[in-house]
Amino acid sequence: MTDFNELPAHVWPRNAHRQEDGVVTVADVPLPDVAEEFHTPLYVFDEDDFRSRCQDMAGAFGGPDHVHYASKAFISKKVVQWVNEEGLCLDAASLNELKIALAAEFPAARITAHGNNKDEEYLRLCVDAGVGHVVIDNEQELEELNRIAGEAGAVQPVMIRVKPGVDAHTHEFVATSHEDQKFGISLATGAAFAAAKRCLEVDNLHLTGLHCHVGSQVFNAEGFKLAAERVLELYRQIHTELGVSLAELDLGGGFGIPYMPYEEALDIDRVAQDMLRAVERTADELDIKAPFLLVEPGRSLVAGSAVTVYRVGTVKDVETGKADLPVRRYISIDGGMSDNIRPALYGSEYDVRLVNRFSDGGMVPSRIVGFHCESGDILLAEGELPNDIQPGDLLAFAATGGYQYMMSSRYNGAVRPAVVATRVGNTKPMLRRETIEDLLSLEVD
Amino acid sequence: MTDFNELPAHVWPRNAHRQEDGVVTVADVPLPDVAEEFHTPLYVFDEDDFRSRCQDMAGAFGGPDHVHYASKAFISKKVVQWVNEEGLCLDAASLNELKIALAAEFPAARITAHGNNKDEEYLRLCVDAGVGHVVIDNEQELEELNRIAGEAGAVQPVMIRVKPGVDAHTHEFVATSHEDQKFGISLATGAAFAAAKRCLEVDNLHLTGLHCHVGSQVFNAEGFKLAAERVLELYRQIHTELGVSLAELDLGGGFGIPYMPYEEALDIDRVAQDMLRAVERTADELDIKAPFLLVEPGRSLVAGSAVTVYRVGTVKDVETGKADLPVRRYISIDGGMSDNIRPALYGSEYDVRLVNRFSDGGMVPSRIVGFHCESGDILLAEGELPNDIQPGDLLAFAATGGYQYMMSSRYNGAVRPAVVATRVGNTKPMLRRETIEDLLSLEVD
Repeated sequence: MTDFNELPAHVWPRNAHRQEDGVVTVADVPLPDVAEEFHTPLYVFDEDDFRSRCQDMAGAFGGPDHVHYASKAFISKKVVQWVNEEGLCLDAASLNELKIALAAEFPAARITAHGNNKDEEYLRLCVDAGVGHVVIDNEQELEELNRIAGEAGAVQPVMIRVKPGVDAHTHEFVATSHEDQKFGISLATGAAFAAAKRCLEVDNLHLTGLHCHVGSQVFNAEGFKLAAERVLELYRQIHTELGVSLAELDLGGGFGIPYMPYEEALDIDRVAQDMLRAVERTADELDIKAPFLLVEPGRSLVAGSAVTVYRVGTVKDVETGKADLPVRRYISIDGGMSDNIRPALYGSEYDVRLVNRFSDGGMVPSRIVGFHCESGDILLAEGELPNDIQPGDLLAFAATGGYQYMMSSRYNGAVRPAVVATRVGNTKPMLRRETIEDLLSLEVD
Repeated sequence: MTDFNELPAHVWPRNAHRQEDGVVTVADVPLPDVAEEFHTPLYVFDEDDFRSRCQDMAGAFGGPDHVHYASKAFISKKVVQWVNEEGLCLDAASLNELKIALAAEFPAARITAHGNNKDEEYLRLCVDAGVGHVVIDNEQELEELNRIAGEAGAVQPVMIRVKPGVDAHTHEFVATSHEDQKFGISLATGAAFAAAKRCLEVDNLHLTGLHCHVGSQVFNAEGFKLAAERVLELYRQIHTELGVSLAELDLGGGFGIPYMPYEEALDIDRVAQDMLRAVERTADELDIKAPFLLVEPGRSLVAGSAVTVYRVGTVKDVETGKADLPVRRYISIDGGMSDNIRPALYGSEYDVRLVNRFSDGGMVPSRIVGFHCESGDILLAEGELPNDIQPGDLLAFAATGGYQYMMSSRYNGAVRPAVVATRVGNTKPMLRRETIEDLLSLEVD
């Protein structure tokens, strides 16, 4: 057990510190001050943390053009601008993610468009805006995109999403299976080769490479390496049988981050080296030109950059009737499953700290619950927290920059919280807090 | 297996029918027409179905004043108005649910306010608006509400939420445990009696009764009866030791509904009779006056009243690599986990039908997936659907009136769908579809 007053550096934003008075700051901005100004719950992003992670990732892979930020993890116009300024490319996973990126003036040529169910409007915008790559998910889409590009008199650069039959999650990976899912075209059945051949035959698509995705929260290169080996076999087949050298290989996202102090951070330099070397070596062995490697990290660039600040309301000790845990403290906060569905959805755990002061309380079994009218509204199920936490205190959850705000709801009339960015002592609002007027704005009288 | 073209009457809205041309109507409104007008995904409510369920529930319990509609299942101004017109009372589970109810001019005296973490603003609005009951969750809230009511010169009618130690879900219930959760004050430890005593001592609270909740998706009266017996013991203790007869007993919500054809509908008349008799008999045995019984159904009044209509996009056959199921059809729709998180969150199942035409296709193993960039975005995991479903077809999911729209998110830039009400051939929009402008409206430049 670490000291509850310490902020584990590998879990918290790089510029998070606890001051001598016990107050936690992010980029020198005291969290109680922003909590007061912007209300709680509040998402606080450490801008320089995000930028430094982008730079680290770009450095590890040999340049920012190797790295596509996966905006599904978190998208707002400001974050899109940061990604642009750092020179990375950007993934959109839907029509509206693409529209938001374009609204933030992200260069279309550096955008890659994803999705298993792209409709005509989405494909048309990709072509009209001049999106750098469309990742074709299936044969139906291939034909439709070719038709749409043809009508626009354009040749659309594309990749094909293939299923490499690799399932990598956390620290293990499965070398077979993972075919039974909605994304992509199977490598094993020969369908991926047929789709590549078709791409090369039609007039209005330009096939630049293949794309695959092996999983999420991945902590080593093994799954990526096996996927690269399998996909590069297809590059050789395409080269041999169709006479075409594909220039790029996109191995997708999935780099893991530590949510809890006991989890280790991914050594991104080592993983990147392993991946780059595997691609080079495999290409050598296959006697083909090594393609330019693309990766699409979202979570690992953004999740660790933000914390969520909540205010404590009700505190109660509950006699559980359980012999091994007779009393559990229930601490209610002013958010819950509306702003963070991941604990309910995935059983996800987070590192929680008191951020308005030091605590010298003894640790007691505690559960942090939200305000929602549902007993499963639990953000920290099995925790130990100091026994001096009181109504009015501020608790922050670390590593909440990815897949929290994006999946937030208005359940029980929750308003979407404000999102702010801090940098060298300054705070900029990124997304304003919703109001009751927003909730009522959809009503038709 | 029922005929795929039939709509199981106990699962679908009461006024849903398939016409002779194969088109499904709800209250004589063809679903393809509203899908065209209001875009898909689209929630379609059968107004008369909702009203008839309110009337049935009121009839079963002896009058609409016994029945509180739990607005957390679905709240919009129009539904609040329907509840008002049907004479039911209304539950709010948060400050904003209360604000929406008041915005729809629901009489405050017929509102009950819930929540495990009510803040000062919420409690103050309850008092100022003259809410009929505040259900006190804990001792901290009791003192704060008394103070706030005192400052307003008011006496606030309240109930106390107690933990009866009963856990009822689906067809089973557990007579002990369920203490280890966030809601309420324990009966078993004596804390509930102490809280009732304190309510009666203070100047600005008027204790009208006790409240408890035994679970959700409950299909018989056993759990309610046991809870009533336990809670009424406390009524007797309060009567004997404090000389006060509590006038009301609120046994909460939890009546189950059938989502799937193989599930049976709850016999609400029988359950109501069982509950009413149990209260009378127990009160007789305890020699106290039988309190007025309140119930709080949300889901069972509203979930079955609505369907969600989706348009089919990508259709693909996937070779799974599994011996027992070599090929599975993946049907992508234009919604997903953003408009219905329940399959991902709870493993919930729904009855799905083709609604724009008849099908005469053979049944094949099929999965219905959303457009989201996440492999877990599955709305129907293990289904059998006709093999003639094509891009452009319309599929509707039944019984989606409760806990779908309310928990909807903007994940992957999803816009919240429109919600419409149909009645005798007419369609009224209730909530408009969000737009990209809504998504961008929170951006701070």
